[in-house]
Amino acid sequence: MMRTEKPTAILNPATVRRNIRRMADKASRSGVRLRPHFKTHQSAAVGEWFREAGVTGITVSSVGMAQYFADHGWDDITIAFPVSWWQIDTLNGLAGRVRLGLLVESPETIQFLQLRLTAPVNVWIKVDTGYNRTGVRYDDAPLIDQLAAALRLADKLTLAGLLTHTGQTYSIMGSRSIRSIYDKTVAALNQVQQQLQQRGFADVALSIGDTPTCSMLESFPGVNEIRPGNFVFYDMQQVSLGSCRVEDVAVAVACPVVAKHPWKNTLTIYGGSAHFSSDYDDGWIFGAVALPTDLGWSAPLPATRLLKLSQEHGIVQTTPDRLARTNVGDTLMILPIHACLTMNSLKGYTTLEGERLAMLRDF
Amino acid sequence: MMRTEKPTAILNPATVRRNIRRMADKASRSGVRLRPHFKTHQSAAVGEWFREAGVTGITVSSVGMAQYFADHGWDDITIAFPVSWWQIDTLNGLAGRVRLGLLVESPETIQFLQLRLTAPVNVWIKVDTGYNRTGVRYDDAPLIDQLAAALRLADKLTLAGLLTHTGQTYSIMGSRSIRSIYDKTVAALNQVQQQLQQRGFADVALSIGDTPTCSMLESFPGVNEIRPGNFVFYDMQQVSLGSCRVEDVAVAVACPVVAKHPWKNTLTIYGGSAHFSSDYDDGWIFGAVALPTDLGWSAPLPATRLLKLSQEHGIVQTTPDRLARTNVGDTLMILPIHACLTMNSLKGYTTLEGERLAMLRDF
Repeated sequence: MMRTEKPTAILNPATVRRNIRRMADKASRSGVRLRPHFKTHQSAAVGEWFREAGVTGITVSSVGMAQYFADHGWDDITIAFPVSWWQIDTLNGLAGRVRLGLLVESPETIQFLQLRLTAPVNVWIKVDTGYNRTGVRYDDAPLIDQLAAALRLADKLTLAGLLTHTGQTYSIMGSRSIRSIYDKTVAALNQVQQQLQQRGFADVALSIGDTPTCSMLESFPGVNEIRPGNFVFYDMQQVSLGSCRVEDVAVAVACPVVAKHPWKNTLTIYGGSAHFSSDYDDGWIFGAVALPTDLGWSAPLPATRLLKLSQEHGIVQTTPDRLARTNVGDTLMILPIHACLTMNSLKGYTTLEGERLAMLRDF
Repeated sequence: MMRTEKPTAILNPATVRRNIRRMADKASRSGVRLRPHFKTHQSAAVGEWFREAGVTGITVSSVGMAQYFADHGWDDITIAFPVSWWQIDTLNGLAGRVRLGLLVESPETIQFLQLRLTAPVNVWIKVDTGYNRTGVRYDDAPLIDQLAAALRLADKLTLAGLLTHTGQTYSIMGSRSIRSIYDKTVAALNQVQQQLQQRGFADVALSIGDTPTCSMLESFPGVNEIRPGNFVFYDMQQVSLGSCRVEDVAVAVACPVVAKHPWKNTLTIYGGSAHFSSDYDDGWIFGAVALPTDLGWSAPLPATRLLKLSQEHGIVQTTPDRLARTNVGDTLMILPIHACLTMNSLKGYTTLEGERLAMLRDF
């Protein structure tokens, strides 16, 4: 019987490697560069498995993550988050030692970087192609012209291309809808690309990235680079969306059962919003529940859900039969709704073979 | 102008001390022991301010937190979370050096502790008085009898009393409703207390604890101990509930503005669900937004909300006027919805005076 002291991320290396290999092969077949987003795993050890699959350039979401992976031998890093100005000293340190890609979406940031950078960088214009989170609207021609004008005056900045995140793929279902978003995204990026070409920028690459798109489509016509992240582990949200099968989920959180409540068919586990964040989804609630097995974990238990979280507690609702066969001290394996946030909270992994993998601890 | 590199918890020590003093005075006037929950701050430095107010016993929510505070000189610690069996070695280490209180709610856990403990502990029976999360139902007389029988055979365990968390106070409004829940809670605990007295347990203390109750009521008749935690910092949820005024909120998160979108009156800040968790509430959404001032931060800006979070991004919706007066590189102060989870993510504080306070980093 598996014994767990506290919530512990358990990683299946074979599944991780298969997920990486599948995406690398697809990128290769489609003639696009795979620049995976490393925010999902934040682990140098997992990074090595990407290297084995031929990956040489990566995406991160913070300057701290860029430093960490630079320290672990990665020398081509895009920080896919708008530049936070007062990190300029750290950015200069990075720009001096790696091929650094930064995101810009305002003339002010371009001017600031030109003034304060001590080494050249590549920049990507963050384009909002419909997700409506951040970035320049693809049809905001005056602002795009302002960016082009600012970039022409900024010799420390080389325009690498246009970057977008189509997060709207997280709220639709099915590969046909995904293809429709993809086509609109590429058309929107092409419109900006043409405008920039007219302003003298001949070589403007296109970078897209989100796990539903990159998982459900078989090819990526018209773009140069894909930046999916979550696919390395997948999670129950991706299963719901159709990005993967449940067997592709490569991490589960081992949680000890600490109480049983037969009168309401619930179990209390040690594992709450401090571990899983508070993300949930309508179908699986805060996570699916599986049993530990010799090979990792079982399929999700039927009629069993991680129903409610407080800071340290999780409430699992299950069947009378399952409840009767579960004891305090047992371990349940929670397949998280959102692997990125869950792993960000747990700050490390134990592999199925019992090896401890460190990850970034950047505070 | 305040310059922030990344999301940083800013703490106002004067407000923290005032919040502590007010609660300590109220407990003293009401003749109850204040055993504050330290999960909110998880900081040895903040703990010292409690010591100045005469606090000698504390509550924590994990064994790691208990070890941390034991290492910082606290010798009377209740772990207000059901015992996770396979932490027994660490619990034995703690039981040998502090007055340790544990929570039990099953005969199995009592028997397990009796078998495996190497030093005596106090135990509290976790009673569910209506919150319906975990604990023994107050009216489950057969189970309470089983617990009494198991405790009689367990000489390493001393029954200290009954402990409950009335988390349902987080979903109601107004001190009259709080008083009604309080009265029902005490009546429920008294029922269990009497049953245990009939089984030979003469000295059964009652411990309650949640910030809305402890903030909104002026006295605590019938109980021996209160365990509020959040009141040390408060947050926008507590403001909404009526537990405190907005001036009592003692922490804010300084976040840099990284992008402006005048066409939709939004700003992008560096600060997302990796920092604020994903808790939200209907009124303030993910947090209120204030400006940095010489003395800390302003009142929340009108018609301005932290509207949407992704892992690192926060989207602030505001007025055209405020947008025009805000620049990329500026700092906004976010008053979080839920201080406990936010501080748990940020793992440290900077005081208004610029001092860095460490907190537990337990992975």
